[in-house]
Amino acid sequence: MSIVRFSVSLDKALVDEFDQKIQREQCPTRSKAVGDLIRDSLVQTEWQAGKEVVGAIVLVYDHHKSDIVQRLTKVQHDCHDAIISTQHIHLDHDNCMEIVAVRGKPPGIESILKRLKAVKGLKHVSLASGTTGVRLP
Amino acid sequence: MSIVRFSVSLDKALVDEFDQKIQREQCPTRSKAVGDLIRDSLVQTEWQAGKEVVGAIVLVYDHHKSDIVQRLTKVQHDCHDAIISTQHIHLDHDNCMEIVAVRGKPPGIESILKRLKAVKGLKHVSLASGTTGVRLP
Amino acid sequence: MSIVRFSVSLDKALVDEFDQKIQREQCPTRSKAVGDLIRDSLVQTEWQAGKEVVGAIVLVYDHHKSDIVQRLTKVQHDCHDAIISTQHIHLDHDNCMEIVAVRGKPPGIESILKRLKAVKGLKHVSLASGTTGVRLP
Amino acid sequence: MSIVRFSVSLDKALVDEFDQKIQREQCPTRSKAVGDLIRDSLVQTEWQAGKEVVGAIVLVYDHHKSDIVQRLTKVQHDCHDAIISTQHIHLDHDNCMEIVAVRGKPPGIESILKRLKAVKGLKHVSLASGTTGVRLP
Repeated sequence: MSIVRFSVSLDKALVDEFDQKIQREQCPTRSKAVGDLIRDSLVQTEWQAGKEVVGAIVLVYDHHKSDIVQRLTKVQHDCHDAIISTQHIHLDHDNCMEIVAVRGKPPGIESILKRLKAVKGLKHVSLASGTTGVRLP
Repeated sequence: MSIVRFSVSLDKALVDEFDQKIQREQCPTRSKAVGDLIRDSLVQTEWQAGKEVVGAIVLVYDHHKSDIVQRLTKVQHDCHDAIISTQHIHLDHDNCMEIVAVRGKPPGIESILKRLKAVKGLKHVSLASGTTGVRLP
Repeated sequence: MSIVRFSVSLDKALVDEFDQKIQREQCPTRSKAVGDLIRDSLVQTEWQAGKEVVGAIVLVYDHHKSDIVQRLTKVQHDCHDAIISTQHIHLDHDNCMEIVAVRGKPPGIESILKRLKAVKGLKHVSLASGTTGVRLP
Repeated sequence: MSIVRFSVSLDKALVDEFDQKIQREQCPTRSKAVGDLIRDSLVQTEWQAGKEVVGAIVLVYDHHKSDIVQRLTKVQHDCHDAIISTQHIHLDHDNCMEIVAVRGKPPGIESILKRLKAVKGLKHVSLASGTTGVRLP
């Protein structure tokens, strides 16, 4: 890992606004703040360009509902190539939260999402988009 | 307007990835690319912090449906303080697109959106979030 | 236009929650509320599936900056096939808001966005996604 | 749990479009498809209205970077009230993916996100928004 240093020229008032935001968010340095914006934009690009990415699919369901556990397990086994691991949380007596860590190209992840969404009895499905980190040194 | 120049230290490989993105998007300079990311993040902050902002509300409807034109006009007059102007486009024989330019604090704009969405016969409503530019020199 | 009537079976407690939301949002009927959700999901599908769609691009800029007006005009003329019309608002002495109504397939609209974003001096660009209404009776 | 049955009146062509979408997504019944749209809209409302919700925060980082593991652990312990559990995945020799399951009101979750984002050396942070399921029977 080598560090490069480059300079940026911007309106003073814009930099002042940005510095206030950095301070409010307790970001330690301006370089980190700029780096974070750059990394966020590159991760968006990875998803749009169809690169290999990672994600977390969050499922919430009532485990008493018919055979939902078996169905979810079946879908996950069918997609085992893209599923890394699963974290299960007992939210209360009825409700479960299951977080499925996935890795693959965006269309493959979309397809797992679609199959999970089609399972009867699911209350909610959502996705957090991440990066493998390989192209984000 | 005065320009300031500051330097940023980041991993070389990250800067290389960013430079490739800049080139693909035909962004003229690295300073503009960094400035664009900073401005985008500040506009998000303006909306979250409840500052005065601007927006464009896009309505699509079939003007033949009952008294939809009168109803939309009534809502817009009730909200005339926040509505700057309206652009009307005849998409085809039936469908109209109306773009309502709005200015105000986010909760006021949300409230206009809610009132417009409640009008019977509307096909779709969406919002583009903008900035007054005052805090974004 | 013909109306069909179909029935939906759902948990009572879910329907109660939905009814409260409908009332808070002053939506006149449950049919309209369900129809709105269906239309929103179909418009998302239109964008993902690459159908012909409409949109509004919101630009904010300081018209004093170099030759920004000429540059924006040039890009818009180059893309005249997809641009329907433009609404210009004088936000204050310096800042302009320009709302560009566009129509076309999503990649074409993305390409206009990319070209506009590359113009030096722009403060902010955003997009509201809409529908031509043709497939949303 | 009791099921209610209600009827919805909508344009035939709209219902036809929706049925095609249901079929493409292999959703088993129209009731489930309508229920899914209703549940998604209610989860959005829970987050906007500041109800207790759940989420998954996805962190990606290079564990070799300075003392990042200790810093992330410290933040997570400071926020232990809202953090349920953590799943750790070794993406490759350098990169780690950590999925933090959280539960609380949205401002509390935002505050954890802000503290995690401020940690130096993180490559990316994202959030999937979920529901406790309590108000979504």
